Parts: sequence; C-alpha cells; structure tokens
Amino acid sequence: MENYKESFKRFLEIQEEMKNIGDAQGVLYWDMATIMPSKGVERRSEVVGYLSQLMYKLETGKEYQDLVFGLYEHLEEMNDKEKAMVKAAKKSLDFMKKIPEEEYLEYSKLVASGETYWAEAREKNDYESFKPILEKIVYFNKKIAGYIGYEKTPYDALLDMYEPGATVEEIDGVFKELRDGLLVLLKKIGESAVEIDSSILKGEYAIEPQKKYNTELAKRLGYDFERGAIAESAHPFSTNFGNKDVRITTAYSKEDPVTAMYSTIHETGHAIYEQNIPDDITKTNIGGGVSMGIHESQSRYYENILGRGKEFIETEYLNMVSAFEGLKNYSPEDIYKAINKVEPSLIRIDADELTYSLHIIIRYEIEKMLINGEVNFDELPQIWADKYTEYLGVTPESYAKGVLQDVHWSGGMIGYFPSYALGNLYGAQMLYKGMLRDLPNYYELIREGKVSEITKWLADHVHSHGGTYEPKVLIEKITGEPLNAKYFLQYLEEKYSKIYGF
Amino acid sequence: MENYKESFKRFLEIQEEMKNIGDAQGVLYWDMATIMPSKGVERRSEVVGYLSQLMYKLETGKEYQDLVFGLYEHLEEMNDKEKAMVKAAKKSLDFMKKIPEEEYLEYSKLVASGETYWAEAREKNDYESFKPILEKIVYFNKKIAGYIGYEKTPYDALLDMYEPGATVEEIDGVFKELRDGLLVLLKKIGESAVEIDSSILKGEYAIEPQKKYNTELAKRLGYDFERGAIAESAHPFSTNFGNKDVRITTAYSKEDPVTAMYSTIHETGHAIYEQNIPDDITKTNIGGGVSMGIHESQSRYYENILGRGKEFIETEYLNMVSAFEGLKNYSPEDIYKAINKVEPSLIRIDADELTYSLHIIIRYEIEKMLINGEVNFDELPQIWADKYTEYLGVTPESYAKGVLQDVHWSGGMIGYFPSYALGNLYGAQMLYKGMLRDLPNYYELIREGKVSEITKWLADHVHSHGGTYEPKVLIEKITGEPLNAKYFLQYLEEKYSKIYGF
Repeated sequence: MENYKESFKRFLEIQEEMKNIGDAQGVLYWDMATIMPSKGVERRSEVVGYLSQLMYKLETGKEYQDLVFGLYEHLEEMNDKEKAMVKAAKKSLDFMKKIPEEEYLEYSKLVASGETYWAEAREKNDYESFKPILEKIVYFNKKIAGYIGYEKTPYDALLDMYEPGATVEEIDGVFKELRDGLLVLLKKIGESAVEIDSSILKGEYAIEPQKKYNTELAKRLGYDFERGAIAESAHPFSTNFGNKDVRITTAYSKEDPVTAMYSTIHETGHAIYEQNIPDDITKTNIGGGVSMGIHESQSRYYENILGRGKEFIETEYLNMVSAFEGLKNYSPEDIYKAINKVEPSLIRIDADELTYSLHIIIRYEIEKMLINGEVNFDELPQIWADKYTEYLGVTPESYAKGVLQDVHWSGGMIGYFPSYALGNLYGAQMLYKGMLRDLPNYYELIREGKVSEITKWLADHVHSHGGTYEPKVLIEKITGEPLNAKYFLQYLEEKYSKIYGF
Repeated sequence: MENYKESFKRFLEIQEEMKNIGDAQGVLYWDMATIMPSKGVERRSEVVGYLSQLMYKLETGKEYQDLVFGLYEHLEEMNDKEKAMVKAAKKSLDFMKKIPEEEYLEYSKLVASGETYWAEAREKNDYESFKPILEKIVYFNKKIAGYIGYEKTPYDALLDMYEPGATVEEIDGVFKELRDGLLVLLKKIGESAVEIDSSILKGEYAIEPQKKYNTELAKRLGYDFERGAIAESAHPFSTNFGNKDVRITTAYSKEDPVTAMYSTIHETGHAIYEQNIPDDITKTNIGGGVSMGIHESQSRYYENILGRGKEFIETEYLNMVSAFEGLKNYSPEDIYKAINKVEPSLIRIDADELTYSLHIIIRYEIEKMLINGEVNFDELPQIWADKYTEYLGVTPESYAKGVLQDVHWSGGMIGYFPSYALGNLYGAQMLYKGMLRDLPNYYELIREGKVSEITKWLADHVHSHGGTYEPKVLIEKITGEPLNAKYFLQYLEEKYSKIYGF
C-alpha cells in the first residue's frame, strides 16, 4: 500500500513539528517552575498561550486531519507502533475538535500561570487568592468533560486523559478493595507493640551537601546526567524534551534530608522511563510514557518497592551516613524502620507508603464531587479537612497543609491523582509477576548495588515500548494477567508484618 | 488617515506574535547556556531552528510585508516611536528577503548549537574540534554580508547589524585615535614608579557566599529581582523576555571573587537598561536597547566608570570586606588601586579598563580579515597570538587563553566586538556631557549609595527611548554633539594620572 507509507511519512513530519512546539512549551514550563521571576508570569502565559495556539492550528489543520483520518482506515496494515501513533493522533484530534478553539486557548493560558499563583497562595496560606483560579480550572474541566463526552459520569472523561480506558466504575471497585485492605493493615499496625522513632531522620542538614548527595544518588540509580539535570522547585517534578534531555527537580529542607532523597528517587524513576524511550519514536506522539499510571508505577517502584526496601537501604547506608553525619548513630535497621514508619499524616508527599493511597482516595473522591458540581468552593477546605479526619484521623489546621498542598489542580490536572494509586498496584504486580520471575537473584542484585540490571528489565519490558501499548494491554503483556490489587496488598502485608511483627 | 491607524494596529499584532516566538527562543537559549545537559544540544537546535522557521514565515508572509511597506509610505504622519518601529521592521524585512530561507534556517541551527561546541572546545583546549564550526559561521557571515550588500567593504554590512550606521571607515578612524591615545597612556603608566599589588584581590573564596554577595550587589545597583534572576554560565551574559523578565549570568571562580563581581555589575548594567524599557513598547521591535554599542555603554558605565570608580569602591568597601574576609587586611585605597591596576594580559574579560580596548581592536582587525577571506583557519590561532604579542606584549600559550576565549563567534556574532569599545566612548561622553551637567552632586550620590538617582538619569535619557532613536541621533540628543573619542581618553587620563602619578 504505497499510499499509506507516503501519508505516514508526512504524518511523522507534522508529528515532529508538534513535538518541536511541545518541547519549546516544556522548556518554558520548566523555566517558569525553577527560575522565572514572579513578575514574568503574565508575559510567560502569553507566550505559552501563543505556542498552544500554533499547536492547535497545526493539529486541527486540514492537512493533518486528512492524514490522520486517512491513515486510520489502514490500521490493519500497520505494525504496533504505527498503529499506536495513528490511534493516539485520532484520539487527540477527536478531543481537539470537540473543544472550541477560543476556550482551549483561554484554558491553556489559565493553567500556564496557575502554578505560580498556587505557589504564592500556598506560601501565604491564602486560599482566597487561589480560589477563583481553582474555580475557573474546575469550570473548564467540567466543560471539557462535557465536550469529550462520557458514558456514565463526567469524571470518566477526565480519567481517560491520564489513564486511557479507566472508568469511575472500575476505579471505585479497585479503590474499595485497596482501601479495605489498607484499613485492615493499618489496624494491625495500630495494635502492634512495635514503636518506631522516625525523628532520628531529622536534624540540621545544609542544602549544598544534600544537592551533592541527591545528584550522586540519581546517578547510582542509572539516571544519565549527560541527558539530564536537577534543579529546585516548590513541588518536585520531572519533565523531558525528547529522550536526551530529561530533567527532575527536588525541594530541599534543612531539617529533613530524607524527604528530598525519596523525592529524587521518585522523579528519577520517571526520568529513567523517559531516558529509555527508543530514538525511533522519541519525536512521535508515542515517544513517552504510555499513561500517568504506568509512569507512576515506575517512579513509585523506584521510590518505594526498591528505595524503601530493606536491601536497598542496607546498601545505601554507607552513602547516607557519609553525606548526613547525624545518621551514623543509627543502624541500617533503625533507618529502615524509621523510613518505613506508618503514621497517618496531613501531607501526601510526606506520607508513608501504606497510608499514601488513602491520601489519593480522598483526592479522588473530592475530584469526583468537584466535577459533579457538588462542591461550594468556600467550603472546599472544610470538605478536605473532614475527609482527612474521617480517613486518617488527622485534621489540617492550615490551607497550606490542607487543600493547597498539591500543585496538580493549579496546572489543570484533575483526574491525575488516581494514577498514583494505580502506579502502586501496577508496580507490585510487575514485581511479583515479572521481576521476581525473570530475575531470580533480584534481591541479590540490589544488595550488590546492581540496580542497573533491574533498570534493564524495566527498560525492556516497560520503557522501550513508549506509548505503543495501552496500560491494560501492557500490564497483561508483562505480567500475564489484568490489573489486580491483591499484589500490592500482598507486598504491603509481607513488608509491614515483618516491621510491625504481626 | 484612518487607514494607517488600522494597518498599524494589525502591524503591532503581528509584531507581538513575533515577540512571542522571540521570547520563546530567548528562554530556549538561556536554558541551553545555563542548565541544558550536553546531549540535549542536537534536539535543542532542531527546536530553535523550527521556531526560527516560524518567525521567518511570519515576517516574510504577504500580510506582514504589505503592512510594513504600506506603512513605510506614511512615515511623516507618525510619531517618533511609530516611525522607528516601521523603519526597523522594513530594515529587518529587507534583510530577510535578501537571504534565501534555506540558508537562513541552516545558519540558525548552526549558531543555536555553536555555544555548546565552543564551551566544550574551550574546556578541552581543542581548537580543531571548533574550527569547522567557526569556518561555517564565517562562511555564512560572508554570504550574509554579500546578500545584505555594502558600499565599500563586506564587514560594513555586519557592523550595521549591531551598530546601525557604523562603517569600517568611521571605526578605523575612531579606533586609530583611541589606540594612539591608549598607547600614550600605557607608555606613561609603564614609566611610572608606582607599583600596584593586585594579588591582594585573590584568595580562597567559596562560591556560595559569592552568589549571595553578587545578588545583593545587583540589588544595590537597582536590579529588580521580581523581574530578574541570576544563574551561572560559561560566559556571562544577560538576556530578557520583555521588560519583566530580564536575567543575567555570572561565572564564579574560587580564587577570585572580584572578576565575578565586575561581571555582575556589567551584566546588571545591561539588565537595568532592559528593565527600564517602557511597557508601551516592550512587545514591539523597538522594545529593547537600540544598539549593541549603546547597550555596552550602559554595562560598561556601571562596570567601569561607576563600579571601578574611587567613590563607588569606597562606599562598597564595607560590603566587600564583610563578604570576602581576606580583603579586610587592605584599605579602600589599596583595593581601588588593585582593581584598577593596568597590566597587559591575555584574556579580554579579565583585562583592565585601559588595555581592554586593545583587546577589542585586535578582534576587530581579525574579524575584518576573516570576512575579507584573508585568513587560513589553520593559522588563525597564530594570527591571534601574533597580534597579542604586537599590541599587548603578551603571547597566549593555549587556545583557551587565545582564540577560543570568547563566546561571540560561536553564536554567529561577527561585527559585535567593536560595540564594546564604542560603549566605552559613548559612556564617557554621557558622563562629561550629560550626567555631570545634570547632576551636580554626581559624586556625592555615589558616596551616599544613591546610585538609583544616576540610574534614573540613565532611564530618562537612554533607557526610556528603547529603540526609538538610532545611536547617532540618541548620543547627540543626550550630549549635544556627535560621538567623540576624546571624552573617553580624557576620562582615562584623569583617572590613571592620579593612580599612577603622571
């Protein structure tokens, strides 16, 4: 079919043009979050908005539309990667065509500046200044859900943007199993006589040595600094402009070097995924992680399953105590327990591995309410506080430690939070039904500092596919079965029963 | 003339679109020079090249061309700012139309990645790796000069890009007067019995306190950090994305805090110029410094006339010794003399105020030879070394301290160097025929730390005009006469006769 090959070539050219604009936007966002001065925000949002407009014109232009819809008729003749590209292009195009250009541009500008307003509001504990921005963002997301369309509930439309194919019905089910399992474990831990002193991790630690340690840590995990850089930002994130410029940020604290350490491991997990995307797809629409959930499975695998694992901490111990002198009064076992202490708390990103998913379930429930129009924005902080009291037994006394703690909504990301919990589930399933199956010496590799061999397994089974296979297909390809919450609960049970002796 | 107003409105809209692309490119360059990982360079040059292509299409599009050439017929009806905008647009358009699109894009990509290659080559003292890049850049500049056209010599065409209206004939004359005057002064200093120990400025100084000091120093000079940021790069520079995001970089050394200090003052001078551009022109083609020479007049005024002046150093003394303990063994007078020691040397950016212009004259002569095709690139390092031996009596023993020391050529800037010397001349003329005339308490203001009042004078007389008046018009507007080298020589004579007692 000569025709399809010709069209496909032109399709790839326009894809590359779109990637050029997208990468430029990516750098503008990175710059905004890491170094841009406060008064630059208005102008920056104009520039980002303009690029969005160019992207919109390119994507909705007649030539590209004709190519995409034409190629869509030839799916059977294509290989998996080509198929995925055309399907993703069509999905995005369907999305674009449903949203009026003007509204799309207005929304792009709004979310381009949202993070800066949020950071200011959080710093000043000022919900009122952020409220109108958030209202607008929710308003647009509701409209967007309406434009996209959904079968059962508008939140489905948003979920699908981050985790293709996921639905409220399905997530409600999975999260119920997860929550019930977590509550059982939490109860057992509450009844345990084991007392863990996590204050041993705190102390006075200058920022510069932390930067040095985190840089070396990322290197040890396999992050390539010839294709990466670390900076600081209010909320840690990773971003990339192709597979040869993949960056992460960390937020340091003078009292607590361990939070920054695990944030770095988390973002490094995201970054290694993007650095391992093959060259042949890096400039296409499948040249990145396939979904937010699979992305989080990687970051959370590195952060928790690997990074908070006994073997890793025992191996990393010498590096930790050499960078953070105060820790050398404690054994690897002390530090392992302190790092894994379970304690319901207010801040998601500081939460332990077990209660973390309850933070996500709270946000998931609030997001559904927001999108269903069931929230009065004046009452949102109270709704947030009430849910924390109910689920975790703790109540925020400030907006900064409550509803203003996360960056996501300020960037327009509603429907993203579930990805974190899905990531936990995917990761544990990959561990039990993949890594432990294929790497019989898995724990030895970690003890010997050979994380690179584990990374290679992930590169082969997850990273190298980019966006070729939808999450559902991918997880079954890797583990031989569909997503199942039991592996994560099994993993937690095995880990915490040893720590808390139940 | 309703018609012209309507057209002008649309003209401004397209100008703003161009500024959007330009600002995005600016951020991409900034990012590349300050934090981008080495392997990102190829992809980055693709993205920058793509944006150049968009800019090219916008500027050479029929609508914009019709507007510009149409408006050009109505110049007499316009105010000064409107006139300047249309004239600048036409000049740029004439330039664009003369250069074939493909060559322009190829060149844009080349210079987008040039700085990264140069930085690597300089670090490794590897001229061979940079030679082919430089050859290509010179080749393109010769072609560009040919496309633009010139009356007497191709270098005129390049000069005009940085200093509109300047010619080799004129610069040859001015530089001859300057060089003769400098050599006379240099001879007197050589014969002086005064010995100055500049080694007192060296020592061991950690980077972090230097960063803190330089940040506070920039603030004291009037640089607004709500609209600015400082980072590090191999070669210090300033850049801006409108008037509300104006940034500078500095390169620190652990042995020498004073070089970074004066580099910061220099770049702050550029930045204050851009921060003072009025809002009503910031998104137009006159929304920036009018020429490189006038820009350098500002940076070099702050760096030398103000910053290396006796009054400033006496006032800054307490801040300096509190940041750099080693300096407190010396008096303000010792430090003033050490900072102003005249000593022919190899590195332009480390040169003293007096010999500095000889570094420029060397580059000016070499650039003319390059553009006239009189240089074999294998011999370029030797030509460079010979000129240093001849003019300054010093001979570089490495490429890094010779021909590879400057970033400019790697970014395609041939014809820029003369601006530095012109900046010296403009600055001294503004001092004698402007500031000292209008601010009778000029030296008192500096002694009292009221630099802001001097900055206000510069804002009123120079900055606020943006690109409204060509350098020749502007200098006459400010000082009542055309550019004259005698003021700079007079300034140097007054300053150095006191230091060296002649």
